[in-house]
Amino acid sequence: MRFFLAMMSFFVTATLVANSQERESKPPDEAAIKKLLEVQQDAWNRGDVNAFLEGYWHSPELTFSGSSGVARGFDGVRARYQKNYPDRAAMGKLDFSGLEIRLLGSDAALVLGRWHLTRSQGDIGGVFSLVLQRFPSDGWRIIHDHTSVVNDAH
Amino acid sequence: MRFFLAMMSFFVTATLVANSQERESKPPDEAAIKKLLEVQQDAWNRGDVNAFLEGYWHSPELTFSGSSGVARGFDGVRARYQKNYPDRAAMGKLDFSGLEIRLLGSDAALVLGRWHLTRSQGDIGGVFSLVLQRFPSDGWRIIHDHTSVVNDAH
Repeated sequence: MRFFLAMMSFFVTATLVANSQERESKPPDEAAIKKLLEVQQDAWNRGDVNAFLEGYWHSPELTFSGSSGVARGFDGVRARYQKNYPDRAAMGKLDFSGLEIRLLGSDAALVLGRWHLTRSQGDIGGVFSLVLQRFPSDGWRIIHDHTSVVNDAH
Repeated sequence: MRFFLAMMSFFVTATLVANSQERESKPPDEAAIKKLLEVQQDAWNRGDVNAFLEGYWHSPELTFSGSSGVARGFDGVRARYQKNYPDRAAMGKLDFSGLEIRLLGSDAALVLGRWHLTRSQGDIGGVFSLVLQRFPSDGWRIIHDHTSVVNDAH
């Protein structure tokens, strides 16, 4: 009897521990999210908008809120970037700074940060709020981006 | 022996089921979040900024990203509202619309929507992205707000 109680206790404890570990915020997640943004910044700065867009969820449910309202779907977000940044001069040199990453449960995160474009036609910059989700196959992807201009951001 | 195996199986299954139910997105959460925003809209429209602010997390970690950058902490967010909306005329009549609620795990949510202020001094409106978290004692609260103006929002 004592053996079976011990076994039962072991299985229940093992299940609970496995679940609580799964839910803990893991430092590798923050590193993966920082890396995603570094990859985006580097892609932008070599003029590769398609590589930049790889950080976003490839889904019709992707949303981007900005100065012209809400762009919807991966294709809608790509079209917005192509319209607003038609060439290297408009793209300028991108810097992300002041990143703050907050994990929301085990598979979602909120990232705040500042963006700045150094451009011959005039600098522009502001703040962004990203919501990321972790997908079983693709890892972390941005599922919502709210980006806005702050006039004294440079 | 068979009895103890059955008991073990029962406990492990019960633990797994309890955990999976806990993680499922529950419709009552969406209703609670909609209610929070209705309460905010009603408070605003009777000029009660303090009641409006009850929807936010009472924490130094609360953040609000807007046209002047990031306001920090409950006191910082309150100061921003008091500065930008000093009287009933500046506050106008608030309407939230187009709410989209996405649960992120069991204790966090992303809410997109549009805001509009009808004012004698000129209407203003735009889009917002809220991240909410569910707290054991207080229920759902906004932990981050990114609000920006869209010029054709009215």
